[in-house]
Amino acid sequence: MKIDVTLGIDVGGTNTAFGFVDVNGKCIAESTIPTKANNSAVDLFARLKPEVDKLFSSLSNSYTLKGIGVGAPNANYYRGTVENPPNLKWGNVNIVEILKQYFDVPAAITNDANASAIGEMLFGAARGMKNFIVITLGTGLGSGVVVDGKLVYGSDGFAGEIGHTTFDPNGRQCGCGKKGCLETYASATGIKRTVLELLALKNDESSLRESCFNELDSKKIYDAALAGDKIAWEAFQFTGKVLGLKLADAIAVTSPEAIILFGGLALAGNLIIEPTKKSMEENLFHVFRNKVKILQSGLPEGNSAVLGASALIWNEIIKTR
Amino acid sequence: MKIDVTLGIDVGGTNTAFGFVDVNGKCIAESTIPTKANNSAVDLFARLKPEVDKLFSSLSNSYTLKGIGVGAPNANYYRGTVENPPNLKWGNVNIVEILKQYFDVPAAITNDANASAIGEMLFGAARGMKNFIVITLGTGLGSGVVVDGKLVYGSDGFAGEIGHTTFDPNGRQCGCGKKGCLETYASATGIKRTVLELLALKNDESSLRESCFNELDSKKIYDAALAGDKIAWEAFQFTGKVLGLKLADAIAVTSPEAIILFGGLALAGNLIIEPTKKSMEENLFHVFRNKVKILQSGLPEGNSAVLGASALIWNEIIKTR
Repeated sequence: MKIDVTLGIDVGGTNTAFGFVDVNGKCIAESTIPTKANNSAVDLFARLKPEVDKLFSSLSNSYTLKGIGVGAPNANYYRGTVENPPNLKWGNVNIVEILKQYFDVPAAITNDANASAIGEMLFGAARGMKNFIVITLGTGLGSGVVVDGKLVYGSDGFAGEIGHTTFDPNGRQCGCGKKGCLETYASATGIKRTVLELLALKNDESSLRESCFNELDSKKIYDAALAGDKIAWEAFQFTGKVLGLKLADAIAVTSPEAIILFGGLALAGNLIIEPTKKSMEENLFHVFRNKVKILQSGLPEGNSAVLGASALIWNEIIKTR
Repeated sequence: MKIDVTLGIDVGGTNTAFGFVDVNGKCIAESTIPTKANNSAVDLFARLKPEVDKLFSSLSNSYTLKGIGVGAPNANYYRGTVENPPNLKWGNVNIVEILKQYFDVPAAITNDANASAIGEMLFGAARGMKNFIVITLGTGLGSGVVVDGKLVYGSDGFAGEIGHTTFDPNGRQCGCGKKGCLETYASATGIKRTVLELLALKNDESSLRESCFNELDSKKIYDAALAGDKIAWEAFQFTGKVLGLKLADAIAVTSPEAIILFGGLALAGNLIIEPTKKSMEENLFHVFRNKVKILQSGLPEGNSAVLGASALIWNEIIKTR
């Protein structure tokens, strides 16, 4: 008997990963090609098609491709489009239409944070949950909001932008043009900015005084904090304080049972989770207190993005069964 | 042929209003009894039952009662309960169970802001909308969030508490125990507090200098603003600024097509809507800009609460048809 799989495609600024995933979230095979951000979307998928075919024919067992899910920046689920992504020279392009030219199966697209949320629901830390929020802490802060077992797309397909809720209207300049967005504080870039502020503010010795801004990353800050560096530790405390405050706001809107943290900064574990939890509880309306769990992603680190993209279309297929 | 109606019951701190409403949102008849906040919930519904029967038998046409919807403070839709309401000595009580003793029809309960949201969806300004948020600007600030045509109750039944998202963690003391909650700024009480701050801060002459805090109300501030009072006008500007900022946050979570303002302060019309809209647009993530309408309630002022409560159960009945 043939085994059903879906194809998950994760479009990044540098590489595009793709893989075949079964209904249990097992990644059968995967590969990557360069995205070539200066080329068109049509070029990417024209290069991707033979690679997908090659990977598929290399599989030892017999599989049936049931659908394709894509995670990509600025993706619109309703329209099947990617709309002016900041890191790709794609303009406004309908990806689902392009995929139809190459594959005779259903396809869907959403942004990577939404794909992660569906990935957690089907294969990860949110299995069995109906109401939860996934926060991806990468270069920026993405989010996917699930209400009553369904991802919230909202009126225009762009819901779940918690990274651009406002912590401080007079705060840090955000790439989006606003000031003080949550992601300018709670993200890999945000914690770097916090370290610089703390180094400027305080006189504590710190190994981080040896790194320039462009050399710093959240791993270095994490290692310094573990080694007892006070500035690094305070940077995590402040990041958690800001994140917890804004999570409390989001919880007041949809009342999730859990917040799931995903991405590089989330790997810091309790160093980020504890101050986030403390601040969240302090800022929660009393009816929500001591109810909302903060969990780390339950997806394997290596291919979580492909699993998320695959889960997007598995979720559609399961609904129609 | 008999006409189907539902019974809407709105439990307030002073009076409990009830009425029969048809599927088109026409209120056939209504009445009120005193709530007697110091008595039990059992006492209220024991007194209500004969009044409901009396009103029903007074109707000239022939009607069939199909269900009962209740709007009450601290109500939990999932459990059918009211849980320690601040203004009623009820403790934790199952209202749906009490209603079952008196009426042989389906019953449901939610808080008044959620009831208003369903009322707007079925009978008011949100007809035909799938994604919107209702904000009730009364003594406090309540909210009801609708996603994909369904009211969001969340994991515990208490979703939609936008009034307790945080504007300023070091700000005004809120009745909930937190500091700087939105409702301490954007509500009838909030604008009074703003007036007092402005009177303390500025030297402008103002008719509001003649009123003590307990005499002030939003109508007085509205009248003063219309008469050209600078302090009153600034109070509306500031209220809108705070409300718009926090609406932008909520929009980033669920991407509604409209915000519907309901309740006393909303009657100020453009005096509150214009600064709210301006601040909301300034603080919105760019993908949401110039898309989200701010509308006034489409429910008749007099019996909107009964219509909302009735809509709660009409919505359940319609789903099963």
